[in-house]
Amino acid sequence: MLSEGTIIALATPQGSGAIGIIRLSGPQAFEKTKLFFKPKGALAWDEIKPNQTLLGNFKMGATLIDEVLVTPFKGPHSYTGEDVIELSCHGSPYILQKVISCFLDEGIAPAKAGEFTLRAYLNKKMDLSQAEAVSDLIASESEEAHRIAIQQMRGGFSKGMEELRQQLIQFKALIELELDFSEEEVNFADKSKLESLLNQLEKEIHLLKDSFAYGNVIKKGVPVAIAGKPNVGKSSLLNALFNEEKAIVSAIAGTTRDTIEDTLIIEGVQFRFIDTAGLRETADVIESIGVAKAKEKVTQARVLLYLYDKATSVTELVSEIDSLYHENLNLILIQNKTDLEPIGLDETFKNELIQKLNPKIKLVSLGISTKVIDSLDPLKKQLLQTVQMLGNNDGLIVNNSRHFHALKHALQAVKNVKTGLQNNLPGDLLSIDLKEAIEHIGSITGVIDTDHDVLGTIFSQFCIGK
Amino acid sequence: MLSEGTIIALATPQGSGAIGIIRLSGPQAFEKTKLFFKPKGALAWDEIKPNQTLLGNFKMGATLIDEVLVTPFKGPHSYTGEDVIELSCHGSPYILQKVISCFLDEGIAPAKAGEFTLRAYLNKKMDLSQAEAVSDLIASESEEAHRIAIQQMRGGFSKGMEELRQQLIQFKALIELELDFSEEEVNFADKSKLESLLNQLEKEIHLLKDSFAYGNVIKKGVPVAIAGKPNVGKSSLLNALFNEEKAIVSAIAGTTRDTIEDTLIIEGVQFRFIDTAGLRETADVIESIGVAKAKEKVTQARVLLYLYDKATSVTELVSEIDSLYHENLNLILIQNKTDLEPIGLDETFKNELIQKLNPKIKLVSLGISTKVIDSLDPLKKQLLQTVQMLGNNDGLIVNNSRHFHALKHALQAVKNVKTGLQNNLPGDLLSIDLKEAIEHIGSITGVIDTDHDVLGTIFSQFCIGK
Repeated sequence: MLSEGTIIALATPQGSGAIGIIRLSGPQAFEKTKLFFKPKGALAWDEIKPNQTLLGNFKMGATLIDEVLVTPFKGPHSYTGEDVIELSCHGSPYILQKVISCFLDEGIAPAKAGEFTLRAYLNKKMDLSQAEAVSDLIASESEEAHRIAIQQMRGGFSKGMEELRQQLIQFKALIELELDFSEEEVNFADKSKLESLLNQLEKEIHLLKDSFAYGNVIKKGVPVAIAGKPNVGKSSLLNALFNEEKAIVSAIAGTTRDTIEDTLIIEGVQFRFIDTAGLRETADVIESIGVAKAKEKVTQARVLLYLYDKATSVTELVSEIDSLYHENLNLILIQNKTDLEPIGLDETFKNELIQKLNPKIKLVSLGISTKVIDSLDPLKKQLLQTVQMLGNNDGLIVNNSRHFHALKHALQAVKNVKTGLQNNLPGDLLSIDLKEAIEHIGSITGVIDTDHDVLGTIFSQFCIGK
Repeated sequence: MLSEGTIIALATPQGSGAIGIIRLSGPQAFEKTKLFFKPKGALAWDEIKPNQTLLGNFKMGATLIDEVLVTPFKGPHSYTGEDVIELSCHGSPYILQKVISCFLDEGIAPAKAGEFTLRAYLNKKMDLSQAEAVSDLIASESEEAHRIAIQQMRGGFSKGMEELRQQLIQFKALIELELDFSEEEVNFADKSKLESLLNQLEKEIHLLKDSFAYGNVIKKGVPVAIAGKPNVGKSSLLNALFNEEKAIVSAIAGTTRDTIEDTLIIEGVQFRFIDTAGLRETADVIESIGVAKAKEKVTQARVLLYLYDKATSVTELVSEIDSLYHENLNLILIQNKTDLEPIGLDETFKNELIQKLNPKIKLVSLGISTKVIDSLDPLKKQLLQTVQMLGNNDGLIVNNSRHFHALKHALQAVKNVKTGLQNNLPGDLLSIDLKEAIEHIGSITGVIDTDHDVLGTIFSQFCIGK
């Protein structure tokens, strides 16, 4: 079986604290707790009501291990849907391991990562995408990541997926019906109606699939590379953004060799800033490794902050930018050290640049001075805009690569149906592709039977105790 | 005031986990929680019973922050004796700080370290030594440290202290009575009875005070220094004890320069092993700093494991040991590499050593081979014996330096009474000293008014949230 018997785990983080919570779930949770826990006062175990918190002694034989609070939850009215016991102990690592080992000696199994939530899924307390959202919720570090995770955990996402699946099911019924008739009498009006419905479905799946670009960077942080010639002020910009000395700054070109990375939350959105070695040919071995790494980091970035100063020529800038550009990149060109050049941005320079640059590159240019904190505000605003450009963030957001791939497969299947329809394929062939699309969408929430291996992979990414 | 209003803190350790607990205590705990928490199902806040755990939504305005469990505890039936709310959230650092900040915005104060337990003390839910034991309990890392802390938290220690204080109070009443009469008619029989009572009290306080030697090492771990000439196998012994490669071992004398420290629990007692640089004159600057540090570590140790091998002469050994010896030190002399010298310990050598050694030094000698794990068993047994020699561990154990100093002062006061009695001092003078002894004992459990500064010092050593 996938998960059976009674399990136990520490539910709170490791370490010393005022309180540590140990959680048990399964058929033996209550009876095994009775072996060790004696409630204080008049209450005997038989009088104990579910969801009622009791103070008492946790004893191993005659030895008092701790004074604890115990809260029993009677299945199915619990997180896992099974009988659950929460033991609130003093947060001493010694006590917590002692309490857990008492239960392990009684044959209770240590919970595997995500096993409590796996049971909640198996007992239909939540569907698969909701279960996945629990893990995202715990890991969320920004307002926007939290918003997406909690929307998903609350079932908003599942509802959207189910609606999509129902539309596909109806369409499948329709196509089977229409095309059965079409053998007798070709009806172009109905075929074009089918095509328009299909286009609508394709568009919806496309939108959802594309929202992954947004959902994924929100979950993991938007990767922003800072690049430019040596000594143009990249590390100074990083330090100014973080308002602390993260990178060593000096007037010596080649000061930064390692890649320095850290996250910053701007208006609820997390950005991962990557300061890189200055891009130049160098004889210094360590520095040249740094330069290669810098170029690699730019290929993974969503946003490139390219810094230059007044001394740079348009030709130089164009060649550098062209060599770094890739199609997922939003380029923000920054003229630094405007405090030294109070004239601000040079419009002639900018116009010349736009003319010579690869026309695919949408250019945003700003002037900053890392010595004037306010001068970073337009940059922060620009960063937020590049994120908004990634996707509509009002509707459903896909932030899980398993969901993304399911949608991608579903989209391909729908496209196959479209081609088939245009080529007058018989209905039974079209419905094979449609069935596939329906199954892929269903696999997101787990309404179709989900493979044990897939479940194992999903839940092993959880922390122990959840 | 020392502690007032409503306070809030995270009660579980920092970090991500399945569950994070936030605790509120004070008159506004319930009403402020109502602002954010809406229980699910039919239950309204007015129907909520104390000690009953409720599932519901924690919302900031329209924004759902988390699904949480809330358990209200109605004062005085709570940890602090005040109204207490425990909020069990998903263990996401983002959510936990968000929930706490909701309450801070409502004017709830962040709890200072130990403030929950301070309130429990101020509301007479526990006395001072019990409150201190809570902190010890959380920090306890071994069975014996846990046993002492839980005995103290359960009030066993307080009871012992109160009995002692009552004895002193009775004796004070007696001496005031007896010696008032003695001015009229000298009664030697009564005086000797007083003296015998006083001796009894002195002995009891002495025993308690001396138990600190045991209680303190149990709490902090018994410091065991490993010393000896270079390349005699000190690091090999450390590695064999820990059964892992803690220290770099080589055939080159002077391999260890830094002091390597780690704790090991042997049958419930924690030992702090300190591997030191080999003791020798050296030209290597870093090594010579290491040698000086090694000697310093030995002065702080309770047990010295002094290693030598067959090549060492008795004269050498005697001079080394004499130079390291101090009166708190238990010496265990270890002949290493017995696998290379299968003849075992040389009795002639041992006898000669005993004759020449400072007679104060009680010698325990063992032969080991770090290549034969079993050969360490006698050493472990010997280490446990040195701890048992530190004190009677059946009765009350003092493990807190504040209690130790209070007992020391009380003992001095009792000794003063004894001298005064022998010198026929009048009863009112004797009772001043007795009053002092009574106050010192009372300060341990806090039955006498305790200074705010003292309370501040005691509770500031707690973790936040307790």
